[in-house]
Amino acid sequence: MKRFLGLADFSREQILDLLALAQALQDKPEPSALAGKILGLVFFNPSLRTLASFQAGMARLGGSSFVITPGQGTWQLETRQNAIMNGASAEHIREGIPVLASYCDALGVRAFAEGKNLAGDLGESLFRMIDTLCDKPLINMESAMNHPCQALADWRTLDELQIPQKAKFVLSWVYHPRALPLAVPAATVHMAAMRGMEVVVLRPEGFALPPQIMTAARQAAAAAGGSLTETSDRAAALAGASVLYAKEWGSTMYYGDTEADSRLRAELSDWCVRERWFAGALPDTKLMHCLPVRRNVAVADEVLDGPRAVVKREAFNRLAVQMAVLHRMLA
Amino acid sequence: MKRFLGLADFSREQILDLLALAQALQDKPEPSALAGKILGLVFFNPSLRTLASFQAGMARLGGSSFVITPGQGTWQLETRQNAIMNGASAEHIREGIPVLASYCDALGVRAFAEGKNLAGDLGESLFRMIDTLCDKPLINMESAMNHPCQALADWRTLDELQIPQKAKFVLSWVYHPRALPLAVPAATVHMAAMRGMEVVVLRPEGFALPPQIMTAARQAAAAAGGSLTETSDRAAALAGASVLYAKEWGSTMYYGDTEADSRLRAELSDWCVRERWFAGALPDTKLMHCLPVRRNVAVADEVLDGPRAVVKREAFNRLAVQMAVLHRMLA
Amino acid sequence: MKRFLGLADFSREQILDLLALAQALQDKPEPSALAGKILGLVFFNPSLRTLASFQAGMARLGGSSFVITPGQGTWQLETRQNAIMNGASAEHIREGIPVLASYCDALGVRAFAEGKNLAGDLGESLFRMIDTLCDKPLINMESAMNHPCQALADWRTLDELQIPQKAKFVLSWVYHPRALPLAVPAATVHMAAMRGMEVVVLRPEGFALPPQIMTAARQAAAAAGGSLTETSDRAAALAGASVLYAKEWGSTMYYGDTEADSRLRAELSDWCVRERWFAGALPDTKLMHCLPVRRNVAVADEVLDGPRAVVKREAFNRLAVQMAVLHRMLA
Repeated sequence: MKRFLGLADFSREQILDLLALAQALQDKPEPSALAGKILGLVFFNPSLRTLASFQAGMARLGGSSFVITPGQGTWQLETRQNAIMNGASAEHIREGIPVLASYCDALGVRAFAEGKNLAGDLGESLFRMIDTLCDKPLINMESAMNHPCQALADWRTLDELQIPQKAKFVLSWVYHPRALPLAVPAATVHMAAMRGMEVVVLRPEGFALPPQIMTAARQAAAAAGGSLTETSDRAAALAGASVLYAKEWGSTMYYGDTEADSRLRAELSDWCVRERWFAGALPDTKLMHCLPVRRNVAVADEVLDGPRAVVKREAFNRLAVQMAVLHRMLA
Repeated sequence: MKRFLGLADFSREQILDLLALAQALQDKPEPSALAGKILGLVFFNPSLRTLASFQAGMARLGGSSFVITPGQGTWQLETRQNAIMNGASAEHIREGIPVLASYCDALGVRAFAEGKNLAGDLGESLFRMIDTLCDKPLINMESAMNHPCQALADWRTLDELQIPQKAKFVLSWVYHPRALPLAVPAATVHMAAMRGMEVVVLRPEGFALPPQIMTAARQAAAAAGGSLTETSDRAAALAGASVLYAKEWGSTMYYGDTEADSRLRAELSDWCVRERWFAGALPDTKLMHCLPVRRNVAVADEVLDGPRAVVKREAFNRLAVQMAVLHRMLA
Repeated sequence: MKRFLGLADFSREQILDLLALAQALQDKPEPSALAGKILGLVFFNPSLRTLASFQAGMARLGGSSFVITPGQGTWQLETRQNAIMNGASAEHIREGIPVLASYCDALGVRAFAEGKNLAGDLGESLFRMIDTLCDKPLINMESAMNHPCQALADWRTLDELQIPQKAKFVLSWVYHPRALPLAVPAATVHMAAMRGMEVVVLRPEGFALPPQIMTAARQAAAAAGGSLTETSDRAAALAGASVLYAKEWGSTMYYGDTEADSRLRAELSDWCVRERWFAGALPDTKLMHCLPVRRNVAVADEVLDGPRAVVKREAFNRLAVQMAVLHRMLA
């Protein structure tokens, strides 16, 4: 495997193979599988789980890693093509990425969406450029519109919890003070669709996921025997649901317009998941979230501290699935 | 050993055992003892010795480590219970700590005192919460009121220097432009008391250590055949002393009141250790300090660059004793 | 080898030996040569290549490393002798460097020039102090006036490209919005001189390299059968050149005078390397640069993206030569 950029690049069988490998490595550790191998990690944006789980995962497989954080101890990196670099950025990724790739055996990169132009972010222009610049195996540690490591960990979590393939999976928008990227909702809806679930996207008006994301997920759902619908009716969405996956994201109607987005979301602070949301759901409906989560803003303490919440298990599963990806790439 | 949170949690014999293990590992290195083990390090506050010595210690025992610095490359972490998280913090330690613990085999955490409420800081509310959130072995890398790694290193330093058990050990307040936490003075006085020394706390009016700290240390002193007194008379304190342990800390009389503390300490800039301080002490009285130390503010060059200063040896001993703690926890 | 502070400290034969070792380690990796060894890395200034290549290099030789970045997660370090430390710096390098050295087997330090006083920077006062404070092998990862790791990597790059020993090597000043240190031009001119090349320094008026640098390089050139001249005539400099080594640096005429330097360089923004610069050079003249490079400010895209540019190879060679230095020091 030379690239792990999105679940959509793989067949359902390939994903199931990766999940089986994650389980196999957990059942029977391979502490020397990646001896002598080096993973480079580049973080254009903050990280807790991703940083710690990739470093721990490489170490558990006998390898090692280094971390580069542009703008913090490292030069700020320019990403625009043909830029006249007389501003804050001292180095271009056209040099930075190939050079870092030359020092390691695989490279992981995190680069969030700019959040200004929806078509540009949907086009993944930055990650496509990084892709062409990196001659080593490359891992998407969250790009403008994807977060495959999270999606794979979530798939594993659903399997571990024995959530039936055809169960109802509700991805719900939740409140956040600011517009956050679409990477996790896009990756999540595609993952649940690929798994063959009855996927419902629940979101207020103005926060519909982009048609490109929905269309691709709908095709994946059809291929796997599942479905994908969208609604702003919370009760209808949650009726009979097995999973509520909470996630914050920015308005797509006002994408890049901070002021309009703020006005729109100002009215929506009641989109904080509370226990009463689950009134019509199944008795043991699970609450998922990729973390970090703002308590009592996106999800209430009563839910996060109760038996529904499986958010820490999701995070723990990042380690397992990333070890499988690294093993497949480097072993 | 599942917890290393404070020397007071251990018997004198257990501490002596740890010190013996530190020596044994120095005499006969065990470069594979912790092969495959991973130490997570979380720094809510700056660090030089702690970061470098823990990473080096794990490596010398064959293990590895990762570093998380909330607010620098990682989300700012909320610590207040039941917080409505609509501010700067993106993640709560109720998620952050268990998730990080799940990636590693032992976790070290540094979290200084808030310095606003003395009772709250004495209660170690933050570290108690971290304790309940971490299901892996946990190391206190400096909490509100404790710094057991430093205390254990200092004990080893006293032993190496063959300072007699019953020698006079003076912990002296020294000047600093700002109020610093009580963690090191509290840990130091308890360590010297537990070692059975004649402990004297020398400090100006307004800087007495809290009664809870003094009472616990006095009991430890009594059990070990030592003593503990307090004074603001420098000449009396230093008469016949074998060790002067210099440390900066904030006013306890005006704890949390920055302005009143500033007024009080403004008059005390002559509390900078100089060679003349040792006039009545033993000829080879040692100068100890946990570092970092502000030269010519807390301790003068003439002392730090002279034969009394053993501060670098104290710092070096951090490595040895922490390796013993890690070995006891993980080998 | 206890010190790697500058190429001038070594004979030509010793350098050739190091380069041979770099090649040998590439031909026949030694993944356990530095097992159990620890490299400490201290960065007073930003880094991308140096950080990643040293961490990767230690890992490829079986060792490990830790990173300290004063002022970012670590105390700001004071460097002035006899300072009264009542400002921002919490710790002096007189404690910090020996303590860090005590935790590792070799120490690398990056500390750029202050850029205020030319004589002071030429005297390498800070690095000389660090030298006296470190009782472990010490590596200069860029000091006020030297960057021997870069110079050694560049020498290796010239060899790999089969640039003849006596070929014409032009070090050219190029534009940058601010005054940058003289470390790389000083190291580069000495390296090319020591290699025995026909070295030409091409720079506008006011940017002549300091006489001390030129004199030392001229002696090295003479010893190796090469030459060193200086000019501001671009066409003459580049006529028949095999290599154009582009580098930004501050005015030496107005060293430390930011305003005068700015006025002087404001007129010089056409010193951005373009394809037309090479009109009189050899057909396959190479473009070298130590990186980071500001595209279309110091060097145009048309050159960096064309076949002349060997800047990524130079960066890749950092790994190889630094592994040789580490191996020589620690194996």
